[in-house]
Amino acid sequence: MKATILNIGDELLIGQVVNTNAAFMAKELTKAGIDVCGTFVIGDRAEDIESYLRHCLSVSDAVLITGGLGPTKDDITKTTLCRFFGSELYENQEALANIQRIFSARGYELTPINRQQSWVPRCCTLVNNILGTAPCMWFDTEDGKVVVSLPGVPFEAENLMTTEIVTRLQQHFQTDFIINKNILVQGIGESFLSDMIEQWELSLPKTIRLAYLPQAGMVKLRLTARGNDRAMLVQQVDDAVESLYPIAGRYIVGEDLESLAELVAHTMKKYGKTLASAESCTGGSVAQRLTAMAGASEYFKGGVVSYCNEVKECALGVNHSTLELHTAVSENTVREMAEGVRLRLNADYAVATTGVAGPGGGTADTPVGTVWIGLASKEKVIAKRLNFGDRRAQVIDRAVNAVYSELVKLVREENEK
Amino acid sequence: MKATILNIGDELLIGQVVNTNAAFMAKELTKAGIDVCGTFVIGDRAEDIESYLRHCLSVSDAVLITGGLGPTKDDITKTTLCRFFGSELYENQEALANIQRIFSARGYELTPINRQQSWVPRCCTLVNNILGTAPCMWFDTEDGKVVVSLPGVPFEAENLMTTEIVTRLQQHFQTDFIINKNILVQGIGESFLSDMIEQWELSLPKTIRLAYLPQAGMVKLRLTARGNDRAMLVQQVDDAVESLYPIAGRYIVGEDLESLAELVAHTMKKYGKTLASAESCTGGSVAQRLTAMAGASEYFKGGVVSYCNEVKECALGVNHSTLELHTAVSENTVREMAEGVRLRLNADYAVATTGVAGPGGGTADTPVGTVWIGLASKEKVIAKRLNFGDRRAQVIDRAVNAVYSELVKLVREENEK
Repeated sequence: MKATILNIGDELLIGQVVNTNAAFMAKELTKAGIDVCGTFVIGDRAEDIESYLRHCLSVSDAVLITGGLGPTKDDITKTTLCRFFGSELYENQEALANIQRIFSARGYELTPINRQQSWVPRCCTLVNNILGTAPCMWFDTEDGKVVVSLPGVPFEAENLMTTEIVTRLQQHFQTDFIINKNILVQGIGESFLSDMIEQWELSLPKTIRLAYLPQAGMVKLRLTARGNDRAMLVQQVDDAVESLYPIAGRYIVGEDLESLAELVAHTMKKYGKTLASAESCTGGSVAQRLTAMAGASEYFKGGVVSYCNEVKECALGVNHSTLELHTAVSENTVREMAEGVRLRLNADYAVATTGVAGPGGGTADTPVGTVWIGLASKEKVIAKRLNFGDRRAQVIDRAVNAVYSELVKLVREENEK
Repeated sequence: MKATILNIGDELLIGQVVNTNAAFMAKELTKAGIDVCGTFVIGDRAEDIESYLRHCLSVSDAVLITGGLGPTKDDITKTTLCRFFGSELYENQEALANIQRIFSARGYELTPINRQQSWVPRCCTLVNNILGTAPCMWFDTEDGKVVVSLPGVPFEAENLMTTEIVTRLQQHFQTDFIINKNILVQGIGESFLSDMIEQWELSLPKTIRLAYLPQAGMVKLRLTARGNDRAMLVQQVDDAVESLYPIAGRYIVGEDLESLAELVAHTMKKYGKTLASAESCTGGSVAQRLTAMAGASEYFKGGVVSYCNEVKECALGVNHSTLELHTAVSENTVREMAEGVRLRLNADYAVATTGVAGPGGGTADTPVGTVWIGLASKEKVIAKRLNFGDRRAQVIDRAVNAVYSELVKLVREENEK
């Protein structure tokens, strides 16, 4: 079964908005075993919408459309689809009730222009969009294909995809069972990993496909099993994962997690430990990625962004002489930062970063990209010198991932005994 | 002149990678007065590349391709383009020298597979990709159209777009002069702003187009002037901007800046003032966005992420009784946070946030979305209560933008006297 994605909106065409909808939708479809064969971005013009919809239907079984469902004049997706399917608009009571509910929750009066959002083509099935006022519309074509029109607002589209659309597509097209399993691998490059697990990969049952999904500083291995015997697929995936540990276990940092930040949250909560951070070159990113996830207050006590030396001294208790003697980017400094923040914020564990993110500030001894990371527990303090290249954003990103990965190792080591 | 963008890569089709290249390229093309009429994402399959390239050439004057130029077997863009244009590959000495330079800088030996990257079709013009080993190739078609093949690595593609490709396209197609001017507006919704400046918009000369580019918590107005008399266009844009201030000046927070974080950096440096931050609900984002930009150490001293009450007390000096009496999300707390971090980190200005980002933690008096922001200078402390809705990511994003915007106002007020 093949799908295409058609994202409609002038704001996408001029590059004002990054098309995150396409990636999110493609990821959900792929996980469900539905192949995406193309993604198309076009403007709010009726003739473009019609011609690309026709093209998408000619190359795929399902077309997922986003955008152009707002209440203003430039939003023409709904009327264009109505004409395309030779239907007529009517006021859908379920859509109207949804819009009224949202307006009254916000304390606004329903205006005629917003009420119009409840009008949908007679030939479509309404899928209730509980997070927004734009209707989500499901169209069945005469030859068994499907066109779904979703709102362009990312959190509305994401919610509809995960709660309704993917499942309905699987049912409609009676797709195979799909079992996905993610394994996070860290500390080994993609090509070395690929050599290391080649024999294991070759021994996988035909029902299982392996994908390498490299991210900054780590590789996500995704096993996808597909077939009609769900219990057997689960067993096959479990067996495959189990047999991977003897080969590459020392590089495996987690399972079924999307990111290292999730792994940190999972690990700290699992062992009931608290965390504090002291950041120089990462400038708050270590804290920011953890606190972006709900529930961070269960384990994250807080952090200090000690961007200048003075703050390293006054807020973290780094010795003036350490900074004078060893400089800010040194083993001694990062150790004192980690230990200082752990004690001052009264946490079980602490992490610290100090480095040269660039583009300026590098020296012969400490070139741009050099990062010292530090970890402190009640038992010990560890420091590690790394280099992450010469691009600022990448240096920060990789330093954060290295900190997360070393932290998880340390916490496991000290609590799994 | 119209352009299309063709992004090639299976990693885009499965949603593993968000297609930031399309947005960046579209933005640069739009700024240069080149209209993007479609963006297409397809996999690494020769027949798809050929058929969509043919389609793109039928609807636009220039086709910008990214991806599929790596050294591995699945990268087939180069050979496909070579066949499409009926050409043959040869070893380009400039490309080879570039690859050798990059390998020797990294201390690696050049392998045969990497050397192959210097082979390009005879019919193309090489555009040197100084940041990477994949060649950038410019093809002229018989009917005066242009196809450019760029590497898929974002920083390589971005560098080529801004330093070479856009200018070459403008020269090739002899496009008009384009003058762009951005005006950042804050504290007023898009529709109210549109009503307020309607008469001004109607009075703009025909050479100038106005675009509303809403972002989280602010609106970017973009004036684009197009014509063949550069000096006149500059004058027209200057006049238009000047005449906007009497009408909407109190909502204008900056010109020619991409974001509020940039405006903060610009303002602090302009007045030579330093900044510290104390963050609860924003969890490090205030610091992170500032330090993501090079040069932050010129004005940003550091910050405290006081995620739990204990840290508010021990690291910021918030009184225990304040937290007991008024709770963590209160005017008194945010005032003590701002003043505390300013004094402890010895900064000219400080900002603070405390709120309920959600989804949990809300009460009747302090529902999810409630955020107190605080600002401290040597002269005063200000606090403001705001509500940013019920989605965690949005609450954090808007709170950060509100903090930046209020800070800029305060710094200007106290230093422009």
